[in-house]
Amino acid sequence: MNGLAPEKIDLMDALASFDETWAPRLIADVDGHHLRLAKLEGAFEWHAHTDEDELFFCLEGRLHLHLRQDGGERTVTLEPGQIFLVPKGLEHLPVADPTASVLIVEKGSVVNTGTAGGERTRAPVPL
Amino acid sequence: MNGLAPEKIDLMDALASFDETWAPRLIADVDGHHLRLAKLEGAFEWHAHTDEDELFFCLEGRLHLHLRQDGGERTVTLEPGQIFLVPKGLEHLPVADPTASVLIVEKGSVVNTGTAGGERTRAPVPL
Repeated sequence: MNGLAPEKIDLMDALASFDETWAPRLIADVDGHHLRLAKLEGAFEWHAHTDEDELFFCLEGRLHLHLRQDGGERTVTLEPGQIFLVPKGLEHLPVADPTASVLIVEKGSVVNTGTAGGERTRAPVPL
Repeated sequence: MNGLAPEKIDLMDALASFDETWAPRLIADVDGHHLRLAKLEGAFEWHAHTDEDELFFCLEGRLHLHLRQDGGERTVTLEPGQIFLVPKGLEHLPVADPTASVLIVEKGSVVNTGTAGGERTRAPVPL
């Protein structure tokens, strides 16, 4: 517990409270792991997290996760109620089609752009 | 990543695959934190987790979380799409009204009955 007040969170209310895309909101800290809520639109960029797993839970819309694996590519497509865990080190490109809302579960140390860095890097901010 | 295959998980399919209540299913391991899926019916028992936060995400039904705090009790009621983080050390009594399905996020070390122990203790099992 990190000092965030133990209040109930309604995900639809939380999603209604912001519009910015690709800018994760921190909604809970569970012993150092974050639950982050994000709105996505179109393509992000290829990146990987060397030391951290990253779990995507699709709440709204559709999200394609393109994955570079074993010298090839495959795509996992998430619709509402579907979850995918991107294991550490796996290069991935999230593409919302055309928009998606996701809940992300990952260590608090995760930077959204991973090793790619660049101008789309955002620290998660509280709701 | 703990060796669970990186496959997409559909929560409704996962919920349809078992009936047992108060017996968490491990659906993902995110750097040592678990996502556990559970079906609940009626009352569990008062307990606390001394060293671990426990996050409840209500997927179906209704869940009352009775909390003992500052010498009194309060109740948080979760409906689908609502989340509550029970901070470490806080005594809580989950009561499904009459049933609920929940996603739980917590450290892999969490025992469902916490310090109370007893016959309702269950280790989480993979789906």
